[in-house]
Amino acid sequence: MIQITLPDNSIKEFAEAVTGYEIAKSISNSLAKVVLSISVNGEVWDLSRKIESDASIKLYTWDNREGQETFWHSSAHILAEAIEFYYPGTQFGIGPTIDNGFYYDVDLPDGKVLSEKDLQKLEQKMLELARQKNEIVRYEVSKADALNLFKEKNDDLKEELIGELEDGTITLYKQGSFTDLCRGPHLPNTSYIKAIKLTSIAGAYWRGDEKNKMLTRVYGITFPKQKMLQEYLVLVEEAKKRDHRKIGKEMELFMFSEAVGQGLPMWLPKGAQLREQLENFLKKVQKKYGYDQVITPHIGDVNLYKTSGHYEKYGKDSFQPILTPSEGEEYLLKPMNCPHHCEIYKWKPKSYKDLPVRMAEFGTVYRYEQSGELHGLTRVRSFTQDDAHIFCRPDQLKDEFKKVIDIIFIIFKALSFENYTAQISLRDPNKPEKYIGSSENWDKAEQAIVEACEEKGLETTTEVGEAAFYGPKLDFMIKDALGRSWQLGTIQVDYNLPERFNLEYIGADDNRHRPIMIHRAPFGSMERFVAVLIEHTAGKFPLWLTPEQAVILPISEKYNDYAKKVSDFLNISDIRTVVDNRNEKIGRKIRDNELKRIPYLLIVGEKEAESETVSVRRQGVGDKGTMTNNEFVDFITKEVREQLSGLYN
Amino acid sequence: MIQITLPDNSIKEFAEAVTGYEIAKSISNSLAKVVLSISVNGEVWDLSRKIESDASIKLYTWDNREGQETFWHSSAHILAEAIEFYYPGTQFGIGPTIDNGFYYDVDLPDGKVLSEKDLQKLEQKMLELARQKNEIVRYEVSKADALNLFKEKNDDLKEELIGELEDGTITLYKQGSFTDLCRGPHLPNTSYIKAIKLTSIAGAYWRGDEKNKMLTRVYGITFPKQKMLQEYLVLVEEAKKRDHRKIGKEMELFMFSEAVGQGLPMWLPKGAQLREQLENFLKKVQKKYGYDQVITPHIGDVNLYKTSGHYEKYGKDSFQPILTPSEGEEYLLKPMNCPHHCEIYKWKPKSYKDLPVRMAEFGTVYRYEQSGELHGLTRVRSFTQDDAHIFCRPDQLKDEFKKVIDIIFIIFKALSFENYTAQISLRDPNKPEKYIGSSENWDKAEQAIVEACEEKGLETTTEVGEAAFYGPKLDFMIKDALGRSWQLGTIQVDYNLPERFNLEYIGADDNRHRPIMIHRAPFGSMERFVAVLIEHTAGKFPLWLTPEQAVILPISEKYNDYAKKVSDFLNISDIRTVVDNRNEKIGRKIRDNELKRIPYLLIVGEKEAESETVSVRRQGVGDKGTMTNNEFVDFITKEVREQLSGLYN
Repeated sequence: MIQITLPDNSIKEFAEAVTGYEIAKSISNSLAKVVLSISVNGEVWDLSRKIESDASIKLYTWDNREGQETFWHSSAHILAEAIEFYYPGTQFGIGPTIDNGFYYDVDLPDGKVLSEKDLQKLEQKMLELARQKNEIVRYEVSKADALNLFKEKNDDLKEELIGELEDGTITLYKQGSFTDLCRGPHLPNTSYIKAIKLTSIAGAYWRGDEKNKMLTRVYGITFPKQKMLQEYLVLVEEAKKRDHRKIGKEMELFMFSEAVGQGLPMWLPKGAQLREQLENFLKKVQKKYGYDQVITPHIGDVNLYKTSGHYEKYGKDSFQPILTPSEGEEYLLKPMNCPHHCEIYKWKPKSYKDLPVRMAEFGTVYRYEQSGELHGLTRVRSFTQDDAHIFCRPDQLKDEFKKVIDIIFIIFKALSFENYTAQISLRDPNKPEKYIGSSENWDKAEQAIVEACEEKGLETTTEVGEAAFYGPKLDFMIKDALGRSWQLGTIQVDYNLPERFNLEYIGADDNRHRPIMIHRAPFGSMERFVAVLIEHTAGKFPLWLTPEQAVILPISEKYNDYAKKVSDFLNISDIRTVVDNRNEKIGRKIRDNELKRIPYLLIVGEKEAESETVSVRRQGVGDKGTMTNNEFVDFITKEVREQLSGLYN
Repeated sequence: MIQITLPDNSIKEFAEAVTGYEIAKSISNSLAKVVLSISVNGEVWDLSRKIESDASIKLYTWDNREGQETFWHSSAHILAEAIEFYYPGTQFGIGPTIDNGFYYDVDLPDGKVLSEKDLQKLEQKMLELARQKNEIVRYEVSKADALNLFKEKNDDLKEELIGELEDGTITLYKQGSFTDLCRGPHLPNTSYIKAIKLTSIAGAYWRGDEKNKMLTRVYGITFPKQKMLQEYLVLVEEAKKRDHRKIGKEMELFMFSEAVGQGLPMWLPKGAQLREQLENFLKKVQKKYGYDQVITPHIGDVNLYKTSGHYEKYGKDSFQPILTPSEGEEYLLKPMNCPHHCEIYKWKPKSYKDLPVRMAEFGTVYRYEQSGELHGLTRVRSFTQDDAHIFCRPDQLKDEFKKVIDIIFIIFKALSFENYTAQISLRDPNKPEKYIGSSENWDKAEQAIVEACEEKGLETTTEVGEAAFYGPKLDFMIKDALGRSWQLGTIQVDYNLPERFNLEYIGADDNRHRPIMIHRAPFGSMERFVAVLIEHTAGKFPLWLTPEQAVILPISEKYNDYAKKVSDFLNISDIRTVVDNRNEKIGRKIRDNELKRIPYLLIVGEKEAESETVSVRRQGVGDKGTMTNNEFVDFITKEVREQLSGLYN
């Protein structure tokens, strides 16, 4: 008798060893059709693998990352089978899953270079193999047998991989005529795979080392339904159009310069304007919530980071220390703002009445990243955090958490992120030695976070054991307009830095106490947030935020003077306005400026100049009629006010 | 016959060799009474030294720096004479003049330590020696004679100094019983010195080297009139009260932390608020003048600074390069923003129609200073420039210069710097090899600056030969409330960086041209400017600028809620308001808050709470009567508007 414990703790009994597939089927036929793999006592297994003794299990479908990984893992094997079919003698490197699909690194015979046409041929072959419903079978083999097998195939790459494995842990998987070294897990057979797209080819050094041979990397993605592939391809096209690097260039928001250095973004005038709008918005919100802005330098003594522990964490792998020409000092580019803020906290003795202290800074920090890891504004070497640290008493923690949640809600609302989730990370109560701070404090802090979320009506998932060693936290994830998830906004409790910096306040009991520190950055960093915002809005920022709110288009050069006059008036009225006074046809000007994503196009000609009016056109909407200049100011000001209504003040 | 050419080019003839004193007397008796030294063919001489051949001369009085230096130089010798009188066997190091007075470094016998009382005794002796009207006589001596003289006196310090001099260039000066090695020049006799104050004592290593012996440095200052000394001492007292380091602490504007690093200011909330007000003010002004803000990182590739030439200038003596943990890159903390801005200029090809480009950034730069040189906010290792670079065509230079002058006028007006002068620095036309850029361009640029100043009605002095090698410039000096001069605001033409960065625009002629660059920073740096502003205003900033505009003082804790309500209302109305809800008597609260230099004190009690009013008190002025909350908003808003009226918008 075998007892299988399901995730809801109910138990199913089976007379003998049973597979994941059989368990699913015992629950329902429809479940059995969509289940892809199974977790057995925390380890992901093939659905067809026999469970020989009692176990806790969880079934994975396409809706689970684990299910997708199983699916794409098997797809990579079919890709390899198709390649071997057309190019016998190919040596196979590794074929892992990635965020979207999988790839296989292969060494094709005779220097073969794959073309677009070859990919189509391979796709067809893969579909054919999938339809054959070939069983995918798992074998446990000895190291010697495994080595022999691939030696016979002359596959040096696999031989090298096997050479590093421990005997007794090696498994092979075989489908159709193809056998691969693999840990698994895999689908029961190939027929699950209904839609296949090989997306691109790239060169990749064997094992990522440029001293090794260059292999061919074939990328692909597969789905259990044709429709899902079509939707995915549309999404990819749309994502390309919304790529923040592309739009950032088109809208002239930011740039990089090899001469200045990789991964060091420079904000062009419109980008700087956008960023300033965002910063001013957050400053206003934070002012309402009692935050104080400070400004600290971008370097700090190395010992400051030894005190904070950041040197241990970043020292070796980040930008190296800055020496002074004399006096033997050593500084670091700051990887974090917290140590500076702790020093400001310490400047003046604090009493319990002075808390909470909420210290905010748009602080630019520097962290080294390998050049290959850099990506637009989302992976950079310098970025500006919308950082703040709250120093509070234990009894203030819940209230402070609630206020930070409020601020994050305000931001999401102002920027139309309607779709978000939150995750609470708690400590593993069975491993108290992993965490600093008293168990009592942890209990209180965790309870404060849980209650704060409840009281704010925030839906959360809870992950036990995911807390940092220095405190529990709350993370926000948003879904953008394309349904992609981005992690934004962490609220992190910290018992560590107050300890390391010996921060204190005098309590009502006249004794010294340790404040609790909360780290929070709703945007995360200005760079990453602007990238997400660009991809979410396709560059069509909310009116209150967009760098240029209106562009004036004189229908001929004769009206350039009037256009300038209107532009001056609007700018004085705090409406960010530019003039397109190029000597171009009005139709061309409208088209060009729609592309620039400026919300209001104001067309002026003889009629408008005479009556001191503008003809108003809303980007992507159309004609809004003629308004006097004053009317337009009221009109647009009202729209901005409505967008921000109730968010601050 | 000797011909003496005066500064106005008139010529006086003398039958035989003549002294400066005699020349002065030949002009007028009253001039002879106040003249202190003379420049003879550009070299400053004793008044009593004979001029043996034709020469161009200039007479110096107390109103010239050269006159003061002669005066204080002689005063240092009298100090030495007095010290030798009381402490025979003293060895004498150097005794130079400084900005305010002079000092003498001495090695007193038997480890004698000077007390306050000793200083008074020395002052009395100096006055006595001065009144003796001892002649100060110059001797030219051989090196051997000079060495013998000081060997006899057992003065090793002087011996060491003489040892390094060239024979034939050595002069001694003697007054009364004291002889000193000295280049001069000196007063004719000691009676000019009417008022003497020895101000302080410090330790100083011989020749500034900590491996040498520690000497006693005695500081002093002297004047030709007793009244001038009294005025000076009052000024010193007032300057101490206004010391920006003291006020910065009292007003909680900024701090330093040894743990973060020396010379790295951190802006506390009120200081950050002050700085933001200043930055926003300048941003608005600059927006009106067509500037675009950009944001660039605080580091740049070392090669960027090799291109710009800054590496050669700052590389060795500033913060050392930052290495990367891999990939072998080298970065520098940026000492200047210009190279980054040149890279932004190059991002997109420019046509003559795109110019001028006016690129502004509040850019924080880092330059190493010896820790001994650091001083509050005026000498720091990190500072934020209100930097901008204008890239323009030659025909736009004058207009751009005029616009920058306008901006500087606006700033001076908004901050009540009514007393300022300007200096134009031109090239030395006899040394064309010293300068880069064509002679034609220099002519045009110099003419543009001169005309721009004329057209703006700016009074200037002109210094030929003071231009940088890369272009002429205009410097502004302000006088603060204590009459001290500060250099602020330089407008610098630059032909060098456009060349080094190969900057171009396409002209109307379709050919490539080189733009001219103008560097300008009206504040200089936020740090230094705030220091000057604090010392100028004694912390009583203009209402529009001050971090806290109003403080609400409830007369008892009963009215704390009403105070909070009023404060919320005022803050929403953009009036920066705080509440003093301490449990203190109202008299104490008024006193404490006057000290904090908050312009408006709003007292609230029963009457005010009932009628929704505040009792208004202007700092340093007194009662302004009772106003409704709305009336107060209008009142203070009007005052702010008047302060800034016409400055922007």
